[in-house]
Amino acid sequence: MSAVADTIRNGVDTDKMFATLDLIKAQPELARFQFRATNRWIAGAHNRSTIKDFYAAGGDDTTRTDAFELDAGEPAILLGTDTGPNPAEYLLHALAACLTTSIVYVAAARKVRLTAVESAVTGDMDVRGALGISDEVRNGFARIRIAFKVEGDATAEKLREVVERARKRSAVYDMVTNGVPVGIDVETA
Amino acid sequence: MSAVADTIRNGVDTDKMFATLDLIKAQPELARFQFRATNRWIAGAHNRSTIKDFYAAGGDDTTRTDAFELDAGEPAILLGTDTGPNPAEYLLHALAACLTTSIVYVAAARKVRLTAVESAVTGDMDVRGALGISDEVRNGFARIRIAFKVEGDATAEKLREVVERARKRSAVYDMVTNGVPVGIDVETA
Repeated sequence: MSAVADTIRNGVDTDKMFATLDLIKAQPELARFQFRATNRWIAGAHNRSTIKDFYAAGGDDTTRTDAFELDAGEPAILLGTDTGPNPAEYLLHALAACLTTSIVYVAAARKVRLTAVESAVTGDMDVRGALGISDEVRNGFARIRIAFKVEGDATAEKLREVVERARKRSAVYDMVTNGVPVGIDVETA
Repeated sequence: MSAVADTIRNGVDTDKMFATLDLIKAQPELARFQFRATNRWIAGAHNRSTIKDFYAAGGDDTTRTDAFELDAGEPAILLGTDTGPNPAEYLLHALAACLTTSIVYVAAARKVRLTAVESAVTGDMDVRGALGISDEVRNGFARIRIAFKVEGDATAEKLREVVERARKRSAVYDMVTNGVPVGIDVETA
């Protein structure tokens, strides 16, 4: 294999990864990021977010050429018309996606070549909370479970270490398990 | 206006809403829901979730005809190729979408006709946490801010009350601010 090919592992350019880590270690101010979304109500449970700009490494990012649009909805039983996954399902996706990317990046850094990462995630909710029927149950999921199947050219022990390290560094896992302060401003017209 | 038209407010069938609330009050066991997603790694930061089935009101839902597919990615600066919003951006979308739907439903129940609900949400992150460079910053957002613009046929005070009630009942706001226990299982091959 060529030296170039060797630096790409699991689809991740590890030379670039280590260069990025070195740069941020040397200039910690470059680590300040801000991610953003705007959302607009369409009708009923249908609303749409637009995601494009973000702040990273000292300035607004200009590499994204197109905006992403995400449609949310609710199924019929929750009074919607299935215009998209519901917000709680989006949260499950965010969690699974973040843990998966963390697993892939950690494996790349540790010279583990992965062949498959699959997961199934579930969230249990008593909807009496969100529907305002009961104060005795919470609004969100009581618990979330995620089952990973990870395959690669390493021992089971090593693969489990990779998942554990990924869990310890996942941004969304941190937020979903520990919570984040959220400030809400309201302008009316 | 006809009686039928009167029951639809903000795109929400309020007759059906109140019937659903009455049914769940009478039979609380129908309030047990489980939402689900499966995720598959594709390459690098690119992975995809599939969302279709869920459990609701005593059985698996069969009303959704098609699955939703969501692609996650990372921008170039985070070693991806922009195959989709990143997981932290999906979390911002989940939060904005859930608060917006809660606002729309609460307004419908309180006979407030809305004309616009827009929001801008930001999350501030020091990426040294998620990149494993520093243990002194958290992995996720330090804080999230969301600015709503709400318009409708009610006083500013009433519109603010609607937003406040929505905040108190939003499933994703609860999860993002308070956290949820997450269990991870790993199978290797």
